[in-house]
Amino acid sequence: MSTQSLATLMTPCLIVDEARMTRNIERLAAHAASLGVPLRPHLKTGKSVEVARRMLPGGTGPAMVSTLAEAEVFAAAGIRDITYGVGIALNKLDRVLDLHRAGCRLTVLVDSAAQARAVADASARAGIAIPALIEIDSDGHRSGLVPDDPEIIEIGRILQDGGAELAGVLCHAGQSYGAVGRAAQAKFAEVERTALVAAAEALRGAGLPCPVVSAGSTPTAHAATDLTGVTELRAGVYVFFDLVMAGIGACAVDDIALSVLTTVIGHQPARGSIMIDAGWMALSRDRGTAAQELDQGYGLVCDEAGRPIPDLIVTQTSQEHGTIAARPGSDAAMPDLPIGTRLRILPNHACATASQHGEYHVIPKDGGPLMEWPRFGGW
Amino acid sequence: MSTQSLATLMTPCLIVDEARMTRNIERLAAHAASLGVPLRPHLKTGKSVEVARRMLPGGTGPAMVSTLAEAEVFAAAGIRDITYGVGIALNKLDRVLDLHRAGCRLTVLVDSAAQARAVADASARAGIAIPALIEIDSDGHRSGLVPDDPEIIEIGRILQDGGAELAGVLCHAGQSYGAVGRAAQAKFAEVERTALVAAAEALRGAGLPCPVVSAGSTPTAHAATDLTGVTELRAGVYVFFDLVMAGIGACAVDDIALSVLTTVIGHQPARGSIMIDAGWMALSRDRGTAAQELDQGYGLVCDEAGRPIPDLIVTQTSQEHGTIAARPGSDAAMPDLPIGTRLRILPNHACATASQHGEYHVIPKDGGPLMEWPRFGGW
Repeated sequence: MSTQSLATLMTPCLIVDEARMTRNIERLAAHAASLGVPLRPHLKTGKSVEVARRMLPGGTGPAMVSTLAEAEVFAAAGIRDITYGVGIALNKLDRVLDLHRAGCRLTVLVDSAAQARAVADASARAGIAIPALIEIDSDGHRSGLVPDDPEIIEIGRILQDGGAELAGVLCHAGQSYGAVGRAAQAKFAEVERTALVAAAEALRGAGLPCPVVSAGSTPTAHAATDLTGVTELRAGVYVFFDLVMAGIGACAVDDIALSVLTTVIGHQPARGSIMIDAGWMALSRDRGTAAQELDQGYGLVCDEAGRPIPDLIVTQTSQEHGTIAARPGSDAAMPDLPIGTRLRILPNHACATASQHGEYHVIPKDGGPLMEWPRFGGW
Repeated sequence: MSTQSLATLMTPCLIVDEARMTRNIERLAAHAASLGVPLRPHLKTGKSVEVARRMLPGGTGPAMVSTLAEAEVFAAAGIRDITYGVGIALNKLDRVLDLHRAGCRLTVLVDSAAQARAVADASARAGIAIPALIEIDSDGHRSGLVPDDPEIIEIGRILQDGGAELAGVLCHAGQSYGAVGRAAQAKFAEVERTALVAAAEALRGAGLPCPVVSAGSTPTAHAATDLTGVTELRAGVYVFFDLVMAGIGACAVDDIALSVLTTVIGHQPARGSIMIDAGWMALSRDRGTAAQELDQGYGLVCDEAGRPIPDLIVTQTSQEHGTIAARPGSDAAMPDLPIGTRLRILPNHACATASQHGEYHVIPKDGGPLMEWPRFGGW
């Protein structure tokens, strides 16, 4: 609870529209259910126990995280089945073991024999079989092994024979973030699925187990129509969505549940621009829409109620200054926004913008006073 | 103090080289002294009481901040003369008054009659004459009034007659961040000075006081050779410097005192790339060198001791993954960096990268164990 309202909150600050967030969560849950595949929500966008509780109906998982700090906070909040989605650094294995000792089944990710050996050695020393997934690369995006790489079998054997637990394979088709439209995203979902199934079959053909076949990204999870052979589906940014996701058609602008509340602090009529008190510190430096058909600058300007103002975007940022102006090429009239006017900015990238803030101010879906939900960061 | 060393710190984390930081602080202090103008260091880069203490030899100011949260933390730490360098939002005046009541002389910035009226009204109501500077625009960068704008006199009269304190004029030639080389930066210093002196003369000619004539940015502060008529010089990012500043010749690469410690977590030999556990969450999304002659990607890769590895940069980032590879077009040999190797990344933009972290791990200039200095954020 909070005694503040949108009209009294100190600016800049982070706003969540709980009704939209709930709709986003329910939509993907229904889609995953229709495909018959359990969902493993990624908690890295929210970094909040309150958001996590709403993404995980059972409250204990399965869940995905991007840092061990997230795993530790969420394990302490009762989540018991967590996959850490970044290739394990050897210096982090002691913390992985501590999470297991605390009752959390933390699964790690490997894509090299060197990591597999370290995971197996740590498992054997501790007498705790750390579950590990082998990361598969389906699209040349960043990490992982291509499905026919013989190192997959080598890693599987090292884990299995060395005292760890070979949990299966995982793939993230990161290039799907550049695929515009449902059909193009569905193709990436099939690219993910095909790569995973091939790798799983390679492991099984070598006499190794592969119980988990984990696929997903927000675009592919929403677009997938056939997940034969896949055992779990992952997605994260869908909880809030953002302008990058709207730009590729993975959501509508009015699905975006996250915004930054800001105040008008000045005018530059000669340049047709207005200054606000949200710079890149509040909005992040993310310019993810710069490469899209519709460049949204540092964010799309809405009124205090969250309604977009046609063609008005944040064109430039300093650390604590934002400049808003009509989108280049637009002939939309500049609205009258006196000093003191409160606006909301929809972000390019929800994960990046949220990470600039220490808490969410949440507009409850059922009305009533704002709620304040803490966020955390760090590693 | 810390029981950690560079070899044992959990990655990713933020490293400060205190010897370089001290050299940067002393160099600008000497230059300002040679020009006969007092320095008002900007504390927004460090956001740390420990860093502030080293930037402010007397310990009480003058200092500059970019948020009221900074003003409140630094005032509590004993700094008594602070200028808040973002045009004042009307909803923040109660906090400004509270800082005055707590013994901190906080000066605000205005560039409109509407703000001036609000500052004067708040001053009159509280019986505290809030000092206000009028922001002058010398280069069309973001906010401020051009020197011959008659609103300057109007604002001066509103402040003076309404119960506030007309403290003077302030200018920040933000376009100087794009000026390459000392000579080009010196021209911007002169642009700042000329605009300020004209505005100050306009105020004085109208019978109004203008005791403070405040100029500066890191590039112009270092390049200025004549500050006649200027009463104080401001700069901030010079405390750490960064690749953007090196790219315009405002510092050398080996002046950069800030880096992110990271660990190698994977290899993609087919693509000539290496994965590290520092993504944009640790490095920030800032791509300030993208528009410079030498694009440094998301940062320049150094060994654990901080020595740059020729032509190796962070070419791509996800939230918690960084991809390092040879700079496009380079024929530098890829070094052998086994999984587990620790590296340090020099940042594009020190303010942005530091803001992603909760603390600094400091290599002391006089040797001995690492120190840990907390950082803060928020508004």
